[in-house]
Amino acid sequence: MSVKRHAAPAELQEKMIGALLRVPFQETVRRIDADLDAAGFADLRPAHFAVFQHMDPGGTRLTDLAERAQITKQSMGYLVDYLSRAGYVERTADTRDGRAILVRLTARGDDVTRAARASLGRLESEWEAILGAERYSELRRTLTVLGEAVERK
Amino acid sequence: MSVKRHAAPAELQEKMIGALLRVPFQETVRRIDADLDAAGFADLRPAHFAVFQHMDPGGTRLTDLAERAQITKQSMGYLVDYLSRAGYVERTADTRDGRAILVRLTARGDDVTRAARASLGRLESEWEAILGAERYSELRRTLTVLGEAVERK
Repeated sequence: MSVKRHAAPAELQEKMIGALLRVPFQETVRRIDADLDAAGFADLRPAHFAVFQHMDPGGTRLTDLAERAQITKQSMGYLVDYLSRAGYVERTADTRDGRAILVRLTARGDDVTRAARASLGRLESEWEAILGAERYSELRRTLTVLGEAVERK
Repeated sequence: MSVKRHAAPAELQEKMIGALLRVPFQETVRRIDADLDAAGFADLRPAHFAVFQHMDPGGTRLTDLAERAQITKQSMGYLVDYLSRAGYVERTADTRDGRAILVRLTARGDDVTRAARASLGRLESEWEAILGAERYSELRRTLTVLGEAVERK
């Protein structure tokens, strides 16, 4: 699916931090979606990205995927079912716990991850050009500090 | 619904900008969700926030809401139906175009917007304390520049 850039929304005079983070975050999603379309993965929609983003290399349990993506286990189940039918993920037994089922990427799923990383790499270069190398590095450092504080809490 | 903070996901050694933006953005969502729960709006889930975030003061067409939130018109329709039954939004005729239908917030919907802004205000204060006032201001300025560049494209 191709996602159009959002129309200008109603905003407060002074944007709150939620909106300030949302606009560039949504742009990363939109760009990856457009580039995946062009790379032959047109059956993927932004909702599916959460599965790829939160997947560990050896596979991840559905419950953990849902928790990391902040959606219900049922919603994550729908996404995984779709991606499984489309050949991007497969279910496999957890070798550390035979009763548990892991979801993991197929070779085609790995191709998606590589294409998405390449897409983000191009976007990073563009943003570095807009902000200048120093300011862009500082943005990355600040977001890293903030992210670590959030995850540590 | 209460959303737990995501478990540590698999990440590249050097996080890409998508992940760097996603972690604090998701934290804004998680915090608003928790605070809305506590304020008596426990029937709202993060998926519904897009409706409130992208709503113009006088109301907004479903098509525009969907486009701004980067989801399909059908998905936005489900969210609006749910919020309408729960008393947060209502459908009304567009006074500038009698054939068009606008979705707009009810008084209870306005209460949600106020509670969400208060929640974000508290989070901003916390982040300012973590980063220091100067670095936090610089983060806001950089995100504003980046957001304007994204929206101008």
